[in-house]
Amino acid sequence: MLYIVGVGVAEGYLTERAIRLIKEAEVVYGSKRAVELAKKHIRGEIRVMTSFGENIYREIENEAKDKRVVVLSTGDPMVSGLGRFLKGEIEPGISSVQLALARLKLDLTDVVIVDSHARESYEEIKKALKIRRKVLVLADRNFDLKKIDEIDEKVKIIVLENLGLDNEKISDEITSDRTIVYLELI
Amino acid sequence: MLYIVGVGVAEGYLTERAIRLIKEAEVVYGSKRAVELAKKHIRGEIRVMTSFGENIYREIENEAKDKRVVVLSTGDPMVSGLGRFLKGEIEPGISSVQLALARLKLDLTDVVIVDSHARESYEEIKKALKIRRKVLVLADRNFDLKKIDEIDEKVKIIVLENLGLDNEKISDEITSDRTIVYLELI
Repeated sequence: MLYIVGVGVAEGYLTERAIRLIKEAEVVYGSKRAVELAKKHIRGEIRVMTSFGENIYREIENEAKDKRVVVLSTGDPMVSGLGRFLKGEIEPGISSVQLALARLKLDLTDVVIVDSHARESYEEIKKALKIRRKVLVLADRNFDLKKIDEIDEKVKIIVLENLGLDNEKISDEITSDRTIVYLELI
Repeated sequence: MLYIVGVGVAEGYLTERAIRLIKEAEVVYGSKRAVELAKKHIRGEIRVMTSFGENIYREIENEAKDKRVVVLSTGDPMVSGLGRFLKGEIEPGISSVQLALARLKLDLTDVVIVDSHARESYEEIKKALKIRRKVLVLADRNFDLKKIDEIDEKVKIIVLENLGLDNEKISDEITSDRTIVYLELI
């Protein structure tokens, strides 16, 4: 059996169900960070993933045919996560998007979430602002806030970084790769 | 101090942080269902909420001035939840939206979430389908699937009900008030 388990965005966000799945696993895959967040509950073999891609995903699926395998995903496997790439059961976790909504006191049904990791997202953001006026962008250092200034209408910008961590920061500039940018047409 | 704490959508979805906040609370407010999901961790006074509204919210905020008060919210307080209405710290929880994404193997950044509880949402849904082609609607028995058929283009419909519960069901008709409708332009 293969389970893709969200470990949450930081320490303390594991759910009771996620903890049980991690404890019962014979083999646990995950990035260094994901493994750290789950470590105290892991009893099986730990395999730290240093690269990601189709070959590795197929190998894991094969191994899961006769073993109980868990792949850890930081945050939620279905929020810009590993869930799409692996055939297995998904166990949700608390994502950085949820922390951003909590800090901004904003409901998920009032925004559009855009993923700008490793791709151009400015056109998508413009369209999203048109229908909802409020957008959360999953961003990193490559995201160019100047392109937002080129939008015709006035846009309020709030940058939320390292959500849930000790160095959590809310400002108007991007300084890290763990960044969520809040945009609102005003 | 006032904390609005997500208890998740069903048994087993409480996070370690949520459990700690619930244990430390002197007074715990929540709907019958939310209290049930948190009960084994509650040590303070339980106040089951049977009505909701501005007056009650202000009373709770007053009480929280000199007590440690938790208001429980099923799912996540920022997903069609109580978080918007109360001045306090938000602790996220696993929402039915996350379970729907997990079942459909769909990433949050590929959909728009629309709340159709207690309001007309068909125009909003049409707009959302235009920019993303994929929409999740938080719905109940009042949601009329026939209005979706009136959309010019072909729309695939999947109805997910009672997510996370023993009577979870995936079909093409709405039979309960705990319903998420997946719509996709095809």
